[in-house]
Order: sequence, then C-alpha cells, then structure tokens
Amino acid sequence: MRSKAEPSLSALPAVLPWKAGLKGLHTVAGFRTAALHCGLKRAKGNPDLALIYAEEPGAGAGVFTTNRVCAAPVRLSRAHLAKSKGAPRAIVINAGNANACTGEQGAQDAARMAASVAELLNLKPTEVLVCSTGLIGQLLPMPRVEQGIAKLCGMVAKKPKSGDFARAIMTTDLVPKPASAQIKVDDATVSFAGACKGSGMIMPNMATMLGFIVTDANIAPNPLQAALSQVTERTFNCLTVDGDTSTNDTVLLLASRKAAHPPITQAKGKAFAAFVDGLYAVCDDLATQIADDGEGAEHLVRVFVLGAESPVACKQIALTIANSPLVKTAIAGKDPNWGRILAAAGRAGVEVDAAQCELHFEIQGQAYPLFKAGRPLAFDGPAISKAMDARELNVVLRTGPSKHAAMVRTCDLTHGYITINAEYHT
Amino acid sequence: MRSKAEPSLSALPAVLPWKAGLKGLHTVAGFRTAALHCGLKRAKGNPDLALIYAEEPGAGAGVFTTNRVCAAPVRLSRAHLAKSKGAPRAIVINAGNANACTGEQGAQDAARMAASVAELLNLKPTEVLVCSTGLIGQLLPMPRVEQGIAKLCGMVAKKPKSGDFARAIMTTDLVPKPASAQIKVDDATVSFAGACKGSGMIMPNMATMLGFIVTDANIAPNPLQAALSQVTERTFNCLTVDGDTSTNDTVLLLASRKAAHPPITQAKGKAFAAFVDGLYAVCDDLATQIADDGEGAEHLVRVFVLGAESPVACKQIALTIANSPLVKTAIAGKDPNWGRILAAAGRAGVEVDAAQCELHFEIQGQAYPLFKAGRPLAFDGPAISKAMDARELNVVLRTGPSKHAAMVRTCDLTHGYITINAEYHT
Repeated sequence: MRSKAEPSLSALPAVLPWKAGLKGLHTVAGFRTAALHCGLKRAKGNPDLALIYAEEPGAGAGVFTTNRVCAAPVRLSRAHLAKSKGAPRAIVINAGNANACTGEQGAQDAARMAASVAELLNLKPTEVLVCSTGLIGQLLPMPRVEQGIAKLCGMVAKKPKSGDFARAIMTTDLVPKPASAQIKVDDATVSFAGACKGSGMIMPNMATMLGFIVTDANIAPNPLQAALSQVTERTFNCLTVDGDTSTNDTVLLLASRKAAHPPITQAKGKAFAAFVDGLYAVCDDLATQIADDGEGAEHLVRVFVLGAESPVACKQIALTIANSPLVKTAIAGKDPNWGRILAAAGRAGVEVDAAQCELHFEIQGQAYPLFKAGRPLAFDGPAISKAMDARELNVVLRTGPSKHAAMVRTCDLTHGYITINAEYHT
Repeated sequence: MRSKAEPSLSALPAVLPWKAGLKGLHTVAGFRTAALHCGLKRAKGNPDLALIYAEEPGAGAGVFTTNRVCAAPVRLSRAHLAKSKGAPRAIVINAGNANACTGEQGAQDAARMAASVAELLNLKPTEVLVCSTGLIGQLLPMPRVEQGIAKLCGMVAKKPKSGDFARAIMTTDLVPKPASAQIKVDDATVSFAGACKGSGMIMPNMATMLGFIVTDANIAPNPLQAALSQVTERTFNCLTVDGDTSTNDTVLLLASRKAAHPPITQAKGKAFAAFVDGLYAVCDDLATQIADDGEGAEHLVRVFVLGAESPVACKQIALTIANSPLVKTAIAGKDPNWGRILAAAGRAGVEVDAAQCELHFEIQGQAYPLFKAGRPLAFDGPAISKAMDARELNVVLRTGPSKHAAMVRTCDLTHGYITINAEYHT
C-alpha cells in the first residue's frame, strides 16, 4: 500500500489508523473469504477463483461499467443485486477469463456460477453476485470452475482466514491492491476492508477494474448505495490510465451491519457523512493504487482542477488533461509542458479562459508555478525536470474563482505502455 | 502525395485527373503565392513565412479550432472573415511560432501582421487573414516578421510561381502535404489546389493542423462556407492522431470565381454537389496525408463504422475506436485485437449491441472477418498479423442495419510517438 502524500488543497477525511496495519476482507466482522487456483490462470498455485461470504443478511450496493458491450456477469450481478433487495450474501469472482463477448452460453455460465454457490451455501441464486476478469471471447471451462466453487464453499463453511483474496483477483497487475480503514460512528468503531484489481491486461485484452469492499457498518441498502455512488464518482470515476473503459468494470460493497451504532437509514446526517469518509479513504487508496500500477507507469499523477463553473466542469477538465497523450508523454519525459496542459483544458468542452488560468506543479510538497494570467511564467526548466524524478506529481490548475474542485488520478504514458500493449502477438 | 486505396464501401467522388500531376496553389487562376525564410525557423533557407494573394475580390470561407484556449491569429482571422463579408484577399502564414498564450501583445502582433500586408498590397486590414503555427507562449520577433512580409508582398506583386508554399507552413512534419483536383461544373473545368500541415510539434508543443485550399470556382461566400463546413465534418474532423485539439487549428478556402460556369449562389443543386465532390477529394487527400504523417506512425488506419442509429453516432463510434490507445497499440503490434475495438465501440456513448456487431479488417483489398453476432470468429491470427505488415489498414465495423456510415483517418501508437513526445526536454 502506498503512502498518502496528499497535496495541501485536498485534505483526506480523518480516519483512524487501523492498528497493526493492513487488514484483509475476512477480518471485518460478519465476512469470510476464500481463494484458490482452479486452473484459469496458467501458473499452478496462482489463485484465480475467490469468494466473499456474508454470514448473515446485511446490505449490498454496486456500481457497474457504462460500457454498452458489457459482459455476462455484469448483467447478472446488476439484476441479482436488484432482486436480492440490496442484501446479497455472496460474491464469486474469477480471474483469467472475463466471460465477455461469449453470447448466450456466457450468460448461462454466469448464472450457473451463482446457482452453484447458492446451492452449496444454502442461499437463493439471486443472493449471489458474479464477477469475471481476464481473456474475452472465450467460454469458461465450467467443470474446473464448478470444482473450484465446491472447494471454496467448503472453505468458507469452515471459517478460514484467507490472505489470498487480493491476489486471486489479479490479472496482470504487478502487485495486489488491498486497503483498509476505520472510522468512528456514534462512538462505535466501524471497519472497512477492500481489494481491487486493474490496469492489467490479458489477450485479447482490456483493462478491467474490479473492486470489493466490506464493512461492518450498520447501514441500510439505500444509503449504502448512495454512499458507494457518491464515493465512486470521486474515486474510481476520477481515475484513468488510458481512457479505455472495460466491459467488466464493477465495484461491490457489502455491509454486515454488525457494528454497535444506531442504524444509518438515510443518505444524510452526521453518521452517514462519517461512513462516506471511511468509504472514501478506502476507495481513494484503491483507486490511487490502480493509477500507480498503470501499465508502464513511471509517474503517479494527480490532476487537480479548481475554480471552474461547476464540480462536473472541474472533473471534465481534469479528465481531459489526465487522458491527453501529449500531457502524459510530457510527464514521462519530465518536461513541465504547461502548453499541452492548457491546450487539453481548452478542449474539455467547458468554458476555459486562458487569461484566468493559473497552473503549478506540486512535487514532494513544493510548488512550481508555470502559468498565470494568460502567460507562461519564467521558470527553471532543468530544476523542475530534476524534481520530476520523483514518482509522484500533482498538476494543479485553477481556471477561475469558484470554489469547485475535482481531482483525477492517472499515470504517465511511457515506452513501457507501448511495449505491454503493442509487443504482444495473438 | 499518397495513393488513394479506398475500400470498396466508400467510393471517392469522381474527380478528373489533373494532367501532369500535382499543382501548387499559384496555378489556380486568380491566385499568387510566395514563401521565404524570415528567421522563425532555425535552419537558414527553410521557409517559414508564406502569403496567398487573391488578385481580385472573390469569396472566402473558414473553419477554426473549437479549443477555448485559442491563439490570437485564430481570433483575428475569424473576425476578419466576418468583416470582409466572405471576401478576404490575402492570407499570411508563419511557422515556428504559434502566437498562442501571448496575451494582449500577441493580439496586437497578429493585427500588425494583417495591417502590414494590407498596407503593402493596398487592401483593407480586414481583408487579410493570419495563421501561425509553432512554439507557443513566446512573442513573435516582429521586426523579422515585418521585413519578411515586405519581401513577400513585393514577390506576389511580381506574379512569381512559388513552389515553396507547402514547405513554408511545415513545422516538424516529415513531408510537405499538397493536394489538387479538378472537376466539371456545367462543362466548365474547376480546379482546386491545397496544402496543409499537421501532426508535427515544436516545444512546448501541440499538434496544429493548418489547411489552405484555393479554387477558381464561381461560387458565392455562403455556399462556399457551407461546402467547407460540410466537407470539414467528413475530412479534417474525421481525423485524429492523438485526440489532442490544437489552439491554432484552421482551414481556409478561397475562391477566385474565375471559372466559366454560372455562379453557384446556393448550397444546393447539381453544380454545388459537384463543387463539394471536388473539395472533398482535396480535403480527403490532405487529411489522409496528416494521419499518414502522424507522429511515429507505422500504419495509416481508416476506421469505418456502418449501421449505427445516425451519421453522428457512426462518427462518434469511429472516433472513439480511432482514439483508443489500446486499439492503436494493438495495430502497432500487428495484432487483430477485436476485443479492444468492440470495447472502444461500447464506450462511445451511443447504443451498441455486441450481438449485432460485425467486424473485419480490410488490407490490400482483402477482407479478414473477426467478429460476428456477439462472438469472435475463428481466424488465422498469424496470417492476419503478417498481412498487417502493410502500411494501410481499414477497420470495418458494422453495428446495426442502418444505412448510415462514417470514416475516420488515424495512425497507430508506437514507440516513435513516445520518443518524439517524451524524450524532449525543456
């Protein structure tokens, strides 16, 4: 897990340090997890099938890809989440095969995965969600998957503590991506633990982002979904590696409701706000880890845009900058190229007046001013370039006087990205 | 100029072969051009200042960047084109300095360039348009520019035939980009000649696209503008190298009205349609040359999308595919990666149903089917990869049954692009 070197202008919500460091999903009261290798990934012992099990009915929420070409498990999980009335009991996840572009058979296989878990754990099929990531266009080897599911269900029945969950959902991620946080809600301690995968690819490939978060908060399905949607807007939807949206992107959040605070039943009030803060801390951490592990990434970049006409306008400008190949290659080349950043801002589709723009880089706590009032400032190019040896960089652009702001996480565009994505043959 | 290997589904309009090959802008009746080195580019003898002069009032039209951060010459030319009532008499163009992000002084310098040309050629300042391309954020060295303008005006007064125009507008383009065509309008021969620059960069850089076309057609300003806007939508606006829009993009079209056909006064009818065909041929050629000379380009790619709910939807899908780094790197790697193409189509923001999609590559006249009815087809990967050794590739995606279609020109994303854009230091 990376350190949270946040720039001065975006104070992170106050979360409690969870004693003794990072915690797995299974350490949150009410949840069990298991993971194993069933043969979807080539390397033996490399886990590729995982299960999250909620011991009792709680609450669940989900956000799903907006890609029109979405995979069978996405369609199934969206439907099951609605039918379970926001109280799913299990999530089964496989890596190595995305079950996307697999037609009617793919839909049947996703349904079969849910049905198998339901049968073995004595749940309704609609209480089981399914996520898949990996190769697209290939049918799942269902006998292996069903054997794996049988073992997984046996494992969670025995209450194991599995540390392999974050590894089991990886595809070509270089590192597992776990996160955890605790907050206080009405004097009760509420825990969050999550894991995600992303920005890895498998032929014929796309970057899929999957995220799973569990909490023991006592929160009803409606405010849970509201919190996840809100926080996703500011974290996973403020994240880009190459602008490509996957067919399988999914973030799921389960609450066991075991924490000792009065139930949160509405998406408002102090307890809800505290819950959102905790969830933000975990999701920010996860989203940042994805950008940091972006394919070929040599820099972790946070693009802050302030002062535009609305929060949406700020985000649109920040995303346009973060997706600009010219900006991303300039950062890879350690070049403080204010011109490319201004030009990207100008084409974001919202009002931007260069005469009002102010731009600086923030590197290791130090500000490097580049542009103000319609003109570039005199700056020490070689010195900034040297400072850009640091892995982390904040691009801070103010486009006007408003109080609105947005922050997008991304990485640079390097030869590594080209090598990973071009030098692979079918 | 490159050959026009068009795929079967997009027949080019019938244009006459202009005898003895490519013609410069000065060969079109009513126009003179001149170019020289005034010191904006480093290499002596490398032309960096050019002039187009219309001997008599004709008609003019223009399309300009939509980037909110637009350069001083863009604002000036847009205003002058309106004030000249569509009959500009001269265009002065410099390369080496974009006069962008140069504040009030930049605006004064652009106005000074127009005023100098007007004075020397006995025109109104509002009859002169100005285009600049090159470095941004730096003030023009006006004494050099004014000296150059004085010489240029002397040259066009003497009716020179200058072949240097297309070279004078280049920045880091690898090759000059001229095009010409002739058509018949009511038995009269109408000529078009044009030149453009694009996809080259200069520090602190952005890709600027400039295009200049002259014709002797007898056409009024309103239909001329209508034709340019229509054709730009299908050519220069169906072109992408890296999705970055410049602050200076401009295409200007002048008509001397000397051709011997009845005047075209409205944007409809057979004569107008013939004019649009001729203009399309030139603009298609120019736009294709820009994609082919895209930074680091190893493949010229045409993305055809057919059958979506509207022409706009077709174009949106085609542009999303053409801008996808994953698609572009796959093509660089000669990988027939249908998954990345389908995934890009799915996130274009318009309705796409994978079950209705049909995808093939077209290489040197041969079709390579990849995907149909929601599933990948069995295909010979190594054979397609071998065929992708060819420089040109058509990606043909049908997403539904409609008759709508769009075609976007682009290039692949290679190590060359990263090297050009990252390995440069301020």
